[in-house]
Amino acid sequence: MGKRIDLNTDMGESFGTYTFGADEKLLKHITTANIACGFHAGDPNVMDQTVQLAKKYNVAIGAHPGFPDVAGFGRRMIEFTPDEIYRLVAYQIGGLQAFCRIHGVKMQHVKPHGALYNLAARNREVADAIAKAVKDIDPSFILFGPAGSELLEAGKRSGLQVAAEVFADRTYQPDGSLTSRFEKDSMIEDVDIAAAQIEQIIKNGVVKAVNGELVAVEADTVCVHGDGPHAVGFVKKLREMLDNAGVEVVALSKQESPE
Amino acid sequence: MGKRIDLNTDMGESFGTYTFGADEKLLKHITTANIACGFHAGDPNVMDQTVQLAKKYNVAIGAHPGFPDVAGFGRRMIEFTPDEIYRLVAYQIGGLQAFCRIHGVKMQHVKPHGALYNLAARNREVADAIAKAVKDIDPSFILFGPAGSELLEAGKRSGLQVAAEVFADRTYQPDGSLTSRFEKDSMIEDVDIAAAQIEQIIKNGVVKAVNGELVAVEADTVCVHGDGPHAVGFVKKLREMLDNAGVEVVALSKQESPE
Amino acid sequence: MGKRIDLNTDMGESFGTYTFGADEKLLKHITTANIACGFHAGDPNVMDQTVQLAKKYNVAIGAHPGFPDVAGFGRRMIEFTPDEIYRLVAYQIGGLQAFCRIHGVKMQHVKPHGALYNLAARNREVADAIAKAVKDIDPSFILFGPAGSELLEAGKRSGLQVAAEVFADRTYQPDGSLTSRFEKDSMIEDVDIAAAQIEQIIKNGVVKAVNGELVAVEADTVCVHGDGPHAVGFVKKLREMLDNAGVEVVALSKQESPE
Amino acid sequence: MGKRIDLNTDMGESFGTYTFGADEKLLKHITTANIACGFHAGDPNVMDQTVQLAKKYNVAIGAHPGFPDVAGFGRRMIEFTPDEIYRLVAYQIGGLQAFCRIHGVKMQHVKPHGALYNLAARNREVADAIAKAVKDIDPSFILFGPAGSELLEAGKRSGLQVAAEVFADRTYQPDGSLTSRFEKDSMIEDVDIAAAQIEQIIKNGVVKAVNGELVAVEADTVCVHGDGPHAVGFVKKLREMLDNAGVEVVALSKQESPE
Repeated sequence: MGKRIDLNTDMGESFGTYTFGADEKLLKHITTANIACGFHAGDPNVMDQTVQLAKKYNVAIGAHPGFPDVAGFGRRMIEFTPDEIYRLVAYQIGGLQAFCRIHGVKMQHVKPHGALYNLAARNREVADAIAKAVKDIDPSFILFGPAGSELLEAGKRSGLQVAAEVFADRTYQPDGSLTSRFEKDSMIEDVDIAAAQIEQIIKNGVVKAVNGELVAVEADTVCVHGDGPHAVGFVKKLREMLDNAGVEVVALSKQESPE
Repeated sequence: MGKRIDLNTDMGESFGTYTFGADEKLLKHITTANIACGFHAGDPNVMDQTVQLAKKYNVAIGAHPGFPDVAGFGRRMIEFTPDEIYRLVAYQIGGLQAFCRIHGVKMQHVKPHGALYNLAARNREVADAIAKAVKDIDPSFILFGPAGSELLEAGKRSGLQVAAEVFADRTYQPDGSLTSRFEKDSMIEDVDIAAAQIEQIIKNGVVKAVNGELVAVEADTVCVHGDGPHAVGFVKKLREMLDNAGVEVVALSKQESPE
Repeated sequence: MGKRIDLNTDMGESFGTYTFGADEKLLKHITTANIACGFHAGDPNVMDQTVQLAKKYNVAIGAHPGFPDVAGFGRRMIEFTPDEIYRLVAYQIGGLQAFCRIHGVKMQHVKPHGALYNLAARNREVADAIAKAVKDIDPSFILFGPAGSELLEAGKRSGLQVAAEVFADRTYQPDGSLTSRFEKDSMIEDVDIAAAQIEQIIKNGVVKAVNGELVAVEADTVCVHGDGPHAVGFVKKLREMLDNAGVEVVALSKQESPE
Repeated sequence: MGKRIDLNTDMGESFGTYTFGADEKLLKHITTANIACGFHAGDPNVMDQTVQLAKKYNVAIGAHPGFPDVAGFGRRMIEFTPDEIYRLVAYQIGGLQAFCRIHGVKMQHVKPHGALYNLAARNREVADAIAKAVKDIDPSFILFGPAGSELLEAGKRSGLQVAAEVFADRTYQPDGSLTSRFEKDSMIEDVDIAAAQIEQIIKNGVVKAVNGELVAVEADTVCVHGDGPHAVGFVKKLREMLDNAGVEVVALSKQESPE
């Protein structure tokens, strides 16, 4: 194949006494970690530990800002204005940067979480607010967003490097969007099917939508989920299949030049 | 007199719909602003606006981290370990730095708030944790703490520049500590008495304790409070009296060399 | 006139150190208090004090539940499911009931707050969830909602006594709904115009919409706002004008029989 | 033996997406559930579900109020005044009562959680505040507290029925207090030893302290923990051993008369 891809996971989503995800086990198989910033999940203790873990496994670090709603895990839409979202995102990036500075690592990217990610995918004003917050803090940051979304367009407009994200364990609609989590066929649980989907995206730039149609989709990074009983096995197997298929799995900031 | 001093106020302590303090009016008379970081007060909107205001009035900016307790305004002791306090402080500094970076201003200092300030004044482990957080993020930051406190000693040990803080509107005990807020004679409401106390500290390095004794006290910065119905008048008059007495009122980072 | 009406205000919306509204001054002029329950505003201290104050002035007490969002004062829409809203409302009613029980007063009613009130006005499922929570806890509670809303309909369907609410200081649209706060002519600041609007509603059952049309509107209770610099003067004058016009101003639960 | 005892567990301590404990499995073996009230853990959804589960298994229900600190799971001391604690406890009892009312079950008792439990055990003012809150809301509630504590004394003084609590999986000091969790020999992990400790307490009214001394201890209820990988097995086995030893395991409110 001769292609390359980044493999990212959301992590640092434990909170106080509550644990979530299998962060350290996943870090052995992925190349990029999106670390929660204390608003939808995570807290200063968890953030500090997760930055250290990602550094230990030489995994690229990004901020994963969300709506301020631990009880809802950032998955509920909250009606913030674009200006407020700009500041929410800026604050969370700053919070995580403190731990990056402490541990001598450079933050690589920003990827919004949950309801904020979905809102930014379709709402241009929100997408612009997030891109501007990222740019205003550090124009070298990469902005992650769903392939073909308003968020990626906003990042490009603002002059940021962007990374188009696809999902290994989610199905796609004919318009290239993700099938809603509320639909019954939204998740792919079979890792062989998931790996095949990713290989097809990387090799041919297309994904087979739920209706069987092939849809063009760009992909710089693949999101794999870290929670659920089978997450680690899923990610491990996906990584092996990519390695076996000759796909170079490497973080965006460690890719020497665009192909 | 030929002496100089810094005049600092805690600000940015509004929260959502709730307003607190008369920040903009005070900024005309002071030289340093300690900005709340969203844990005991403040929120990303308020932080952003307060950084802009301080910049507009050319007032030095510092982080004012506190315990995570908006309902208690950071005034209640919460049993965090020194390690947890290290991370709480780091996170809050990072959050405020985001807005400093956005508005192109350099953060000058860190001053803990409320119960955290009081704890750090007397507890060496906590003091060391805070000094370490400040140092690890940026060794050029100045650490503010009460004159003669564990916090200042910790700052010096870690190699940070420190600023000994005195209070214009609080009375002192014979051992140089502040009279507890729970005592009836803890506050000075007469601005003439407050100004005289500050002049005596600056001119002679002593303060008259509640029992009439003169106690040695060092002072790099004077804290004036921004809330209460008479706060603005108090600060304005204090500033005028200092100006008239030939005291140079200037932020620590703008003082060209130690006297 | 020979008519009667209830005059209600939202109160108990202070939070920790932050004060809001002029509760005690307003209690002299109104007949019903909607007390915040700690989710959008208020805290256990404020709730306890506000129940005591309302009792002192012999004002009827109701729960004023909102979304869990102190930073947004409950004014931001948050995407809760109807089932979640049922439980949010139940919990908050229970919290306030504790203080009613302690002080030996009977809670009279429930009125949702802010974004939850607006959502319940137009969304039948949410309206039904709220009505069911109220009914399941105490079927003798009165449910307050905007005149002509889904919330009132839901209350009636569930067998609850309902109270149609109108606003003294808000303008109306030709369809009988309130003009959105985001529109420039949404507020009535002139108390004479506000009182005239209320008199016309009580006397003739109609309100003059922003386009001049007369629209039928039922009214059991009038909401007056307790914040803002002129709130107390506004409420005092409105009450006087109603008294002078022969309108009996009395809480719903103290009205002996329907007219 | 001919003795009887109550077996209680803290539960409903999940929060939003975060799960904690094995509530339903435990409910098969215990007689009393202390349900978190949303301040240190739990939320309205979890509370509602846990009340339903406890009802399903015919287990007595009590409120388990704690400090408002989900991030610290209520285990951190927070400096509240006794008056504030009175209101914190009242509010949380009220919140849980709403779900009891909805599901037609009567709340049996109140047991403070974590740092609040420990504080109430040794601080008379706080103990009195909690007892008064319980009494003022419903004098038929039973107050749970550690055997020999200020909390039990406060309950007795106020006229409440109290229940002296002992722990199956914790070791005791010669003065009858629990060994601090920070000591290395504080926990009993061997269920046989735990069951033997409980049998000895029930049969002889004594516990063997860490130094080997036998200490008198009263016991109305035994607390077993619901978290940890072995919790369910531990509780199941403890219950079997008590059953086999002829100890009647029954909730306080279902015990027909004192022995």
